Amino acid sequence: MRTPDFPTGLKRTEATMAAIKELIISQHLRPGDPLPTESSLCDQVGVSRSSVREAIRKLEALRIVSVEHGRGTFVGSLSMEPLVQTLAFRAILHAEGDFSALRDVIEVRRYLDLGCAEQVLSSLAGTEQPELQACVERMREHARAGEPFPDEDIAFHLGLMAPTPNEVIKQLIHSLWMVHQAVVPELGLEITPHLEETAEAHQAILDAALAGDVEAYRQAVSAHYEPLEAIVQDRL
Amino acid sequence: MRTPDFPTGLKRTEATMAAIKELIISQHLRPGDPLPTESSLCDQVGVSRSSVREAIRKLEALRIVSVEHGRGTFVGSLSMEPLVQTLAFRAILHAEGDFSALRDVIEVRRYLDLGCAEQVLSSLAGTEQPELQACVERMREHARAGEPFPDEDIAFHLGLMAPTPNEVIKQLIHSLWMVHQAVVPELGLEITPHLEETAEAHQAILDAALAGDVEAYRQAVSAHYEPLEAIVQDRL
Repeated sequence: MRTPDFPTGLKRTEATMAAIKELIISQHLRPGDPLPTESSLCDQVGVSRSSVREAIRKLEALRIVSVEHGRGTFVGSLSMEPLVQTLAFRAILHAEGDFSALRDVIEVRRYLDLGCAEQVLSSLAGTEQPELQACVERMREHARAGEPFPDEDIAFHLGLMAPTPNEVIKQLIHSLWMVHQAVVPELGLEITPHLEETAEAHQAILDAALAGDVEAYRQAVSAHYEPLEAIVQDRL
Repeated sequence: MRTPDFPTGLKRTEATMAAIKELIISQHLRPGDPLPTESSLCDQVGVSRSSVREAIRKLEALRIVSVEHGRGTFVGSLSMEPLVQTLAFRAILHAEGDFSALRDVIEVRRYLDLGCAEQVLSSLAGTEQPELQACVERMREHARAGEPFPDEDIAFHLGLMAPTPNEVIKQLIHSLWMVHQAVVPELGLEITPHLEETAEAHQAILDAALAGDVEAYRQAVSAHYEPLEAIVQDRL
């Protein structure tokens, strides 16, 4: 006399995920802290072992928990890596028709950099920033050698944000950069076209930031994205 | 003589997730299209049923696939809902010490609105926008009645972006707004403090957009977030 429990099953997984999240909060756990054992979770949440397992798998995909096989389950990093996976997949899937989904990601990178202009300038104007200067110098060396410089690129963009305590904006900038980096070669495009021009674009951004010139900063940011946006516009 | 396959198990799930994503791409599937059956996936990917199930659950959490019990598995919405879950959870988890994680989310909302300033003005300057005007009028009516107006609020912010074809920025704005809305009451804070001031802040944003005055627009955006940022600053 069992009736199929499919619709209930879906709700039960979501309810179990919510219960595990509440348990993490109420027990004041922090990223890296161990969760109760699976059987203890079953008792505390009042559901079957298979429901707990399914909920844990989904929470793992969301980086809310981290399963280390043989060691146990821990509170996860709560990072934005799930966003990277979903956006990168979307950009690749859409790329059959055109590159609009990748173009959207690059545009959002530009919007974020523009939106942070005043925040960046309030912390960098009038300072020296030898590390960022050295980073641009390394970009120039790579450019002269005809090599792309993704490591310097992300180090530069995160370096501009280093003084802000806002972890969400830093992770978002990093995540969208990762989507960009992952998708461009997948679509057979060049990651860093116009190497020397791109190195100098970073110098212009840095110069404007150190000078505290917000208008020049916004212009330099937009100019920096022009070659990157051009490679996806060309194909539309 | 079986050795424990735990570390391999983790890699196998990730490899299976990647294989299913590749299959979606190579078969030119689109959101809403059905995936092959579970047994067909096992054959095509060359892994066990349990590996396929675990991979499907994780892809479901990422909205890359959607499982409809009794109907089958489909390509998912590829929405940013996973980001909302992770960020909302992080903001609530951190809130025991202070509200910095929520403050970060509100700040990123402001950065996005500021970063889109030129994009918004390029499409709205010199136009009429009767729907956005009516939206602000409804905010005023709610404010006079002492009621918050979340529906009008998100309709307004998405309405400003309506002319842009960029789905990523629209979803990001919507997602961060949802995190904000979900977390604020959870922390026992008021969603919309200073109702009348907030309604007028939206009018100022709209006026500046229609006038094409980018500096006034940026100031109106920042002023709009002041009461929202104040409620999380007070508690630090």
